[in-house]
Amino acid sequence: MVDDERIMLSHGAGGRVMQELISSRFLNHLEPLCDEMKSSKIEVPLGAMDDGAVIDGIVFTTDSHTVKPLFFPGGDIGSLSVAGTVNDVAVMGADPLALSLAMVIENGYSISELERIVESIARTCELAQVPIITGDTKVVENGAIDKMVINTSGIGRRSEWLDGNFDTVREHRDFKGNWLQDSNLSEGDSIIVTGTMGDHGIALLSFREGYQFSSEIISDVAPLNKLIEDSLKVGGVVGMKDPTRGGLANTLNEMAEKSKLGILIHEEAVPIMSGVQSACEMLGLDPLEIGNEGKVVMGVVPGLAQEVLEAIKRRPEGKDAMIIGTATRSVRGVVMKTVIGGKRMVEAPIGDPIPRIC
Amino acid sequence: MVDDERIMLSHGAGGRVMQELISSRFLNHLEPLCDEMKSSKIEVPLGAMDDGAVIDGIVFTTDSHTVKPLFFPGGDIGSLSVAGTVNDVAVMGADPLALSLAMVIENGYSISELERIVESIARTCELAQVPIITGDTKVVENGAIDKMVINTSGIGRRSEWLDGNFDTVREHRDFKGNWLQDSNLSEGDSIIVTGTMGDHGIALLSFREGYQFSSEIISDVAPLNKLIEDSLKVGGVVGMKDPTRGGLANTLNEMAEKSKLGILIHEEAVPIMSGVQSACEMLGLDPLEIGNEGKVVMGVVPGLAQEVLEAIKRRPEGKDAMIIGTATRSVRGVVMKTVIGGKRMVEAPIGDPIPRIC
Repeated sequence: MVDDERIMLSHGAGGRVMQELISSRFLNHLEPLCDEMKSSKIEVPLGAMDDGAVIDGIVFTTDSHTVKPLFFPGGDIGSLSVAGTVNDVAVMGADPLALSLAMVIENGYSISELERIVESIARTCELAQVPIITGDTKVVENGAIDKMVINTSGIGRRSEWLDGNFDTVREHRDFKGNWLQDSNLSEGDSIIVTGTMGDHGIALLSFREGYQFSSEIISDVAPLNKLIEDSLKVGGVVGMKDPTRGGLANTLNEMAEKSKLGILIHEEAVPIMSGVQSACEMLGLDPLEIGNEGKVVMGVVPGLAQEVLEAIKRRPEGKDAMIIGTATRSVRGVVMKTVIGGKRMVEAPIGDPIPRIC
Repeated sequence: MVDDERIMLSHGAGGRVMQELISSRFLNHLEPLCDEMKSSKIEVPLGAMDDGAVIDGIVFTTDSHTVKPLFFPGGDIGSLSVAGTVNDVAVMGADPLALSLAMVIENGYSISELERIVESIARTCELAQVPIITGDTKVVENGAIDKMVINTSGIGRRSEWLDGNFDTVREHRDFKGNWLQDSNLSEGDSIIVTGTMGDHGIALLSFREGYQFSSEIISDVAPLNKLIEDSLKVGGVVGMKDPTRGGLANTLNEMAEKSKLGILIHEEAVPIMSGVQSACEMLGLDPLEIGNEGKVVMGVVPGLAQEVLEAIKRRPEGKDAMIIGTATRSVRGVVMKTVIGGKRMVEAPIGDPIPRIC
């Protein structure tokens, strides 16, 4: 088979174009073997395209990081790599057990800078209390890579709080889920975001481009496994996702599609820092499409949403959390009630408005 | 801390220089957290620098692949990525359960070529009977990467044959190991290699450089989990390693050092294809330093070595297996008795004689 189609940046941007590529060129080849084995041990397969997979009780996830520049306000490629993978494991309802660390480094890169990145990795691991237990190091000739690519993969075990959490969900409604999958939303579930949207992408963009507002905005990169654990202790949580590439817009659309219902959110409830808001206005960007690295979007049964929100707000990384809307069959797709009283569709972005942010 | 030291290709070559970098710049930062947790769940830690780590009964390993060119005689970056990680899990004494697949792709790369690589991944997974269950796709701008980097990480569960295998070891000698670690060799253990040395590296080099002998030599890239299982069914296996970067020379030195003894091998017993041998002679390379992608080096108690060898030779991927030597305190380091009756030290290579082969 020969065609002239070429990979574009949007194929890696976490939006619709990427999903189409994965469905048409990856899943068709890779899913048959998963399917053969599904009956046995695979609980959340590749085809679910969730934050992580589950096999034989083990949550497993992977992420390659190509951020530019490597150091940015609030973090660096090291903290990003650790936090991103810790969060992908945790949003499935698991305690992260360990990470792998695979670095591809350009010949000639500064060893002292490399060591700064490793130190940042170690600090973030310490914060999350998740160790790196296996690794790989490759060096490629000058020009074969832009300084560095880091892959972190993660494994986790079912959180001790997950079964109790699901028990409380079942006190409120029918519920068949076994992990915190994107597809678990039902009519009436409250949607919580754990903090302000767009900080990471705008911090990175403005630093990279040297915009004047750069000093005010720092990346939100942070491991959230403790915050997630606190929310599970309260109960009522049905599903979670971290709104990285494609931002809140993409995350809500994925959750809505997989759950086969709509989501209605309220513009005035979506937390956005004023600096991020004004940067987005100046640059013609939608803050809902900007990637985050220290936030979670949750679906929670309405009877427990307020209590979960309060538990989240007690943690520093969750202090700006808000209930932003509701899962509902009364709308198609994701709809936002605007401050001025109108409604607008929140589409999944086609590509990424800011490339190479994670 | 500021210094002017720069990363060199040898830092990623699997030899001594890489080990020093990892010890002095990685382990010092990353090991403390592992150590804190070791008492609980970590059975084989990062610091063991083995093919994989073990935590809470799960074998976990990672590898980023940067081979150039992406397609070569006998394989491609896809088959290489799957086989490499399957083998790293299996040589610890585990059945590979699942792999992750993270691709970083250059903007503009051909989608049909990408699909050929994914098909190759799927075929190799099918052969090994190990599914890809989670993934990540990133696209970077032109020039930020040389076409593609693929990371595969793998998880595995203790082989059902491992305990029985260790029982047979204990019938022959004292043995305290719990996984097939590099450090498990004892005085008198036989060293088996499962096939010819250097095929992968020479196949790749000669194809890349357009040497005339290129058509005769193909890469040995292959998943070896079934061959390894067959050897464990026989019993007597104490440790294993796959001789990838740095080749047999590096692998034997690592096993000897970690086991705190020497290894004596016999030149005439080391299987090398004549084409590889003559290519190495022409190019001034040592076939023992050339990387392999479908071979295993094993330590086996002498009383069962012949039986293990026969089981390996019954499989097509093990048909050229040989007992090449013995672990012994009578030599320091790795020593080879040459065909003409002399002895030479087999040193761990400083760097990689052929860069970007895996």
